[in-house]
Amino acid sequence: MRVPRPQAEYFRYAGPGIVRAKAKASAPTTGAGRAYARVRRLLIGAPLASEQEIEERLSKKKALAIMSSDAISSSAYASEEILNILVLAGVAALSLTLPIAIAISAMLAVVAISYRQIGYAYPSGGGAYAVGSANLPKIFALIAAAALLIDYVMTVAVSTSSAVEQIYSAFPPLYDVRIEVSVAAVALILLGNLRGLRESGNIFALPTYVYIGSALFVVGSGLLKAFVLHDAVATGYHAANVPTPTGGFEALTLLLVLRAFAGGSVALTGTEAIANGVPAFKPPEPQNAARTLVMMAALLAVIFIGVTAVAVSYGILPTGEQSVPALVARVSVGTGPMFYVFQASAALILILASNTSFNAFPRLAAILAQDSYFPRAFAFRGDRLAFSTGIFALALVAAVLLVAFKADTAALIPLYSVGVFVSFTISQAGMVRHWFGTKGSGWRSRLVTNAFGAVLTGVVAIVVASVKFTAGAWMVVLLIPILVAGMLFIHREYANETEELRVREDLVFGQPHRRQRVVVPVPGVTRAVVRAIAFGRTLSNDVRAIYVTDDVEDGERLRARFNRQLPGIPLVIVESPYRQLVGPLVTYLDVMEPDPDAVTIVVVPEYIVRHWWERVLHNRTAERLRRELIGRPNTVVALVPYRREPAGEHAPAR
Amino acid sequence: MRVPRPQAEYFRYAGPGIVRAKAKASAPTTGAGRAYARVRRLLIGAPLASEQEIEERLSKKKALAIMSSDAISSSAYASEEILNILVLAGVAALSLTLPIAIAISAMLAVVAISYRQIGYAYPSGGGAYAVGSANLPKIFALIAAAALLIDYVMTVAVSTSSAVEQIYSAFPPLYDVRIEVSVAAVALILLGNLRGLRESGNIFALPTYVYIGSALFVVGSGLLKAFVLHDAVATGYHAANVPTPTGGFEALTLLLVLRAFAGGSVALTGTEAIANGVPAFKPPEPQNAARTLVMMAALLAVIFIGVTAVAVSYGILPTGEQSVPALVARVSVGTGPMFYVFQASAALILILASNTSFNAFPRLAAILAQDSYFPRAFAFRGDRLAFSTGIFALALVAAVLLVAFKADTAALIPLYSVGVFVSFTISQAGMVRHWFGTKGSGWRSRLVTNAFGAVLTGVVAIVVASVKFTAGAWMVVLLIPILVAGMLFIHREYANETEELRVREDLVFGQPHRRQRVVVPVPGVTRAVVRAIAFGRTLSNDVRAIYVTDDVEDGERLRARFNRQLPGIPLVIVESPYRQLVGPLVTYLDVMEPDPDAVTIVVVPEYIVRHWWERVLHNRTAERLRRELIGRPNTVVALVPYRREPAGEHAPAR
Repeated sequence: MRVPRPQAEYFRYAGPGIVRAKAKASAPTTGAGRAYARVRRLLIGAPLASEQEIEERLSKKKALAIMSSDAISSSAYASEEILNILVLAGVAALSLTLPIAIAISAMLAVVAISYRQIGYAYPSGGGAYAVGSANLPKIFALIAAAALLIDYVMTVAVSTSSAVEQIYSAFPPLYDVRIEVSVAAVALILLGNLRGLRESGNIFALPTYVYIGSALFVVGSGLLKAFVLHDAVATGYHAANVPTPTGGFEALTLLLVLRAFAGGSVALTGTEAIANGVPAFKPPEPQNAARTLVMMAALLAVIFIGVTAVAVSYGILPTGEQSVPALVARVSVGTGPMFYVFQASAALILILASNTSFNAFPRLAAILAQDSYFPRAFAFRGDRLAFSTGIFALALVAAVLLVAFKADTAALIPLYSVGVFVSFTISQAGMVRHWFGTKGSGWRSRLVTNAFGAVLTGVVAIVVASVKFTAGAWMVVLLIPILVAGMLFIHREYANETEELRVREDLVFGQPHRRQRVVVPVPGVTRAVVRAIAFGRTLSNDVRAIYVTDDVEDGERLRARFNRQLPGIPLVIVESPYRQLVGPLVTYLDVMEPDPDAVTIVVVPEYIVRHWWERVLHNRTAERLRRELIGRPNTVVALVPYRREPAGEHAPAR
Repeated sequence: MRVPRPQAEYFRYAGPGIVRAKAKASAPTTGAGRAYARVRRLLIGAPLASEQEIEERLSKKKALAIMSSDAISSSAYASEEILNILVLAGVAALSLTLPIAIAISAMLAVVAISYRQIGYAYPSGGGAYAVGSANLPKIFALIAAAALLIDYVMTVAVSTSSAVEQIYSAFPPLYDVRIEVSVAAVALILLGNLRGLRESGNIFALPTYVYIGSALFVVGSGLLKAFVLHDAVATGYHAANVPTPTGGFEALTLLLVLRAFAGGSVALTGTEAIANGVPAFKPPEPQNAARTLVMMAALLAVIFIGVTAVAVSYGILPTGEQSVPALVARVSVGTGPMFYVFQASAALILILASNTSFNAFPRLAAILAQDSYFPRAFAFRGDRLAFSTGIFALALVAAVLLVAFKADTAALIPLYSVGVFVSFTISQAGMVRHWFGTKGSGWRSRLVTNAFGAVLTGVVAIVVASVKFTAGAWMVVLLIPILVAGMLFIHREYANETEELRVREDLVFGQPHRRQRVVVPVPGVTRAVVRAIAFGRTLSNDVRAIYVTDDVEDGERLRARFNRQLPGIPLVIVESPYRQLVGPLVTYLDVMEPDPDAVTIVVVPEYIVRHWWERVLHNRTAERLRRELIGRPNTVVALVPYRREPAGEHAPAR
């Protein structure tokens, strides 16, 4: 029961006609509501006010941890992806490993430069979508957005399932509950992200930096041993060590090289996250984002090339049991404590790779929602200023994927990394147009760089999609246009709605002059009815009560009482031989002398139950009536509740 | 979209201020609604008007089929229940079989006579509940009702599971799907009963009459052979044929005889159904019901005693494989076609036994609902004039029981038949009080009969409950007080509500004089808002708009527009730093200068989506606001919908 409360506890005067709500104004008033709020606060923290957004912004150090884990974690498997393909063509082909890794790093540099420029040019975030919107037909921006959204979901699913794979490799009994464990992992990262940017930065920073540090140490030691100390073992590949594939070696064709290149290109996934999230940085946003991006690309390239170089010089090939970085660490630092630190942090950063998506997906969805291409709820900031709807949606879809694919990385991976190269291609193409438009200093070389990048990432997108097509990439190829169609559809819906609701700026609206008539459906003479009719009388002189019954005699008795106790209110008896109530009532309103100018106000007396279980005892007629009438033209539904007033405030029925 | 429709198609003028709705007035207007109505009509038939109730009444012939199947079907197992107990004490005890069967039939006669009187004295139905209400403290009536309701549910569960047992004995592969089959059987009987009394009579009459006819033929042939033709085989029991129970024979104690008596008393279950359902008969109701009851009791007694007599004279004992009636039929008519007709109809009538409950349960629940001891929905007649809620509830609870007990008859049976004897005892006790009160002709002998019946059925109730207590009857013993408490609780709730809503008959209510103020929560200036404010202006001169936002500048821009386009309507800006909408708004209403006399009318502009899926695109603020405000004292919620008007009818926004 609410009673009038002292204003100062809930609001602060903030200028003429403006009050500012304090946190208490939104505080729950019921026991269940308070319990829920307490649990919520425990899980995700106290609500943050909108103006605290600036305090929640990320320093470069935290941003690197949150937004780079996806990109940097790919150094843990990218070398292996190249070797896996090249080894099919025998020992001679393996000499291409390092050149390909360097070429991929060059492509990384091109993409990073491009996104650095994007961050400056489109500082409100959105990455490929923003570039596409500004420079290309809208459809390309939507394709880029759809492709990225899919890829973010895949990142979460793949990185979680592969992390869980490593867990159950260590503890085999967990194999049976791998799906539950992976969904629980997603739930944990979800919770961390709901706590807001700054706190998730605190939670997720350490593993990233430990990985970076130990990886640099491993690579440094390895290179030192191989190239400076000329370690005797570091002698490259020998034909004897290269396993013969079933069916013999393949020829070293251009296609094979492209496939190796495409395989290694997985290193680039996640590069776009920083440019998409510029507004999350502390001011000056674009500068901080640009520096973080350069740092990330440099670290990734160094670790990636380093790992590859050590692997090549020691003739390391992927085995079923041990990953290439693990073997690299073994030859570089032995199996001392540093080996285990490196291995543990590599496993952790693979889990945290999904954190990048939890940052990027909701931001992109929010931008799409602001542009009316996504449901509005995605643009709304939750208690902790995070885009909660997007965070929940990402976790939900990823969890569904994990369950549907039984948390099997091998089944998920073909759907992965197509989308990100589609968006790279579109963003680079957009930048080409951008340079044509702005023609700033040095625009020609930049244009050439981006054009080259567009072609390169485009080729990779096609190669990746073709190679993985039958294994599952077809789903992504199918899903992108479906998502784009959905976004266009949503946009049209919102546009229609806005148009329907639009009011011309020059109109002035005064007192209206439409005739109003009041209809009160009544179940007898009760306090609720008396109150509803009293309210109806203030609206119009044309008030009538309607009684629907299958017993006309009963109706006549009621009419007599009505005439006596509520003089001037005619009672219409609608005999309903089939014992329906709502149908005949609504139909009666329809056929009542039609007056297209009049507004019909249906005043519904509603007895309010005090407890949810009391609803079982009622037929909830008011509820059904409201639902049936709410779409009726020229009809207003007024709900007049009746409930026992608290002691002392008990108002008489009249 | 509803447009004004010609009145004559939907209503008929039926006197001053009375219109009578035609079937079309309740007809669905949407495609989905029409499809649903078509499926419904196909399954349960066209709706029946209330005045057709009389046409739906039962002739004696149909009533015997519908209301006696439970009682008469017990002749298929009652003899066996006696033999099963007596055989534990060896061959000497078996000579008590026929006397016990005759004693039980005498008790049946007493109970039947009692219920015949009840039918005359309480012709509006209710049986033990009505007698208890009229003659004993209310609590006994409620205990009788609770006990009966439980027993009706058990009848459905037990008769279905035992019928399904017979089915999978014949087709063993069905064992694995026995639960599904039994639930499907309940669903079928549910459907038959939803079609209404007359049609379910048509459906269920034939098997009952075939069973009665073939049972009489079997019994007649058996008695003829044994007692008239002095069939050489008919020589009664021989010690050699009586199996020795593990642990040896029991002594023939009084307790054992009582247990045998109680076992055979299962023959009485269902006797009360006719007296409970007097209003279902064609007029003159009590006479027709009385004749049907006498006919039922006579048929049951003849078949029961006959089967027992033939079994005794041929020395038939229950075996695991064949039931006593099957063995009786075998010696009486051989294994010719009559044997199979008898066996098949016995199986069918066991299924249909549950039909008696489908008739009796909803009627009793409806009477309880009329007396406010059960939710009101149970008193409402559905499309086919059947008490649909009760029918659905019975089917649902029985199906849950079947699933919970895995359709295992042996597990269900201990819960069965306690309730019916409790209600017999209460009804007979009530009749004793009745005779004291009325003292009509011959009242002394009637009183003695009922007193004797009360004691007898009371003893049986106690014996049944004790013997089966640990096996499951404890659940019933526990459930009866719980149900009674529930009914008392419901009664108190309804009584409180009626009291709260009661209007003194002598008051006259005229034009009210309470001050009204109008509050319109607005999201901007849209057509929906303009319409809501126009409506608000007709209600009061005190109309204010409220804009909740976390961006005060945005609010100030809106205020400027408001002042220009909607002069005279002050806009209050509520700054909500935590981005909540409903909480601050409701709190604002609470702290707004409190005026206990004023009615606050919250006018909610609501944009109506045309398709259900469009809801995803909206935050459904209006819905949440309505739910939050509906219980507020002195508050009326007026929903002003805005939706695109159909072409030609498009009203301007002002």
